[in-house]
Amino acid sequence: MRELAVVLASGGMDSCVSATIAHQSYDLAMLHVQYGQRTQDRELRSFHEIADHFRARHRLVTNLDHLTQIGGSSLTDNAMAVTSPDLESTEIPTSYVPFRNAHLLAIAVSWAEVIGARCIFFGAVEEDSSGYPDCRADFVAAYNNLIELGTKPETHIHIETPLIHLDKQQIVTRGKQLDAPLKLTWSCYAAEDRACGKCDSCALRLRGFLRAGYEDPIQYQDEHDRSRYP
Amino acid sequence: MRELAVVLASGGMDSCVSATIAHQSYDLAMLHVQYGQRTQDRELRSFHEIADHFRARHRLVTNLDHLTQIGGSSLTDNAMAVTSPDLESTEIPTSYVPFRNAHLLAIAVSWAEVIGARCIFFGAVEEDSSGYPDCRADFVAAYNNLIELGTKPETHIHIETPLIHLDKQQIVTRGKQLDAPLKLTWSCYAAEDRACGKCDSCALRLRGFLRAGYEDPIQYQDEHDRSRYP
Repeated sequence: MRELAVVLASGGMDSCVSATIAHQSYDLAMLHVQYGQRTQDRELRSFHEIADHFRARHRLVTNLDHLTQIGGSSLTDNAMAVTSPDLESTEIPTSYVPFRNAHLLAIAVSWAEVIGARCIFFGAVEEDSSGYPDCRADFVAAYNNLIELGTKPETHIHIETPLIHLDKQQIVTRGKQLDAPLKLTWSCYAAEDRACGKCDSCALRLRGFLRAGYEDPIQYQDEHDRSRYP
Repeated sequence: MRELAVVLASGGMDSCVSATIAHQSYDLAMLHVQYGQRTQDRELRSFHEIADHFRARHRLVTNLDHLTQIGGSSLTDNAMAVTSPDLESTEIPTSYVPFRNAHLLAIAVSWAEVIGARCIFFGAVEEDSSGYPDCRADFVAAYNNLIELGTKPETHIHIETPLIHLDKQQIVTRGKQLDAPLKLTWSCYAAEDRACGKCDSCALRLRGFLRAGYEDPIQYQDEHDRSRYP
């Protein structure tokens, strides 16, 4: 039996490729966190299908309702305008949940310590993060230091971020090379049946496939959308 | 209007004294987190009474159900024995929820960023922590570094731990000097009406009062318990 790695898996492409890389060396313990996303049922289905694909030895589905409570406050208290999708923007979007990844990683660490996993695979991507400060490599390095100090002396868990310096095109290429089950992933923020092809997340995904020279294996509401982001 | 501080408040003595210290310089935003503790309704009542006392400008009550999920796994998966209370022990107790304070602080940071609070008061105590690694000063220092990296560039939130190097006797003394509303606090793990006087948490509390030379203002089931821990 191989050692265990916890994989933070949203059901999207990045975490699917991250799981594929983890599975080259480890048995998987797959962790999915819901926090009131509009398409969370669809994402959960993808999560389970990906976990089945890798015959995950453990799986844990949790929720962070307090992020919705806090995030909701940020919208109501400050009456912030919701920004439109803009792939070129480097500003922090108003949908930003402050410090979100610190919550996700805390769950991953607690679980990893309990089940005896050796590391945590986290599909953070600096470039696609639209300036979220908690997706950067220096944040992950600081978190690794925190884990070392905040867990039992005999526990040594570290976070692996194999995609952090890649862009979406490179992630698609890596996924295709490794035969990642990209057809099981879900990225769309707006729809749960066929992907809308229009939201920010669909746009990033389609542009990644087009630039990498592969066809996206999932279905879109309007198949013409595939060529809208060259 | 003074600047805001988030106070992590369990309803117990340490966080009450911590809130009292915070209130010398800040208006308070009081945060309470439930995670399936047996006496959580009673603790919540104390939390609200303490928040009323300080006329808290904001309050947030959240839950971390996933800690129960994960903690539960540790008991069932590893079939660990539950350790008896032992005030002198330096071993990590089996009730330890791995990395718990990283979760609590993540909520505090997200909320602080949203409401514009300047700092977080956290009543961690190294000595009473029975060896929990996430109650130590070096853990808090590492967390402060994580906050700086993981929040917006213009955000500067730091964690204050005014009690971290005190023992329970010194905390009682400090609380009495500052007129902290200790009569509103709750520490007992076992009862919700009158404190049991027998559990680990009652034992620590009573010993602290006795050594400090003050009488504990809350009621106990058996008033003779007051003198059992000289």
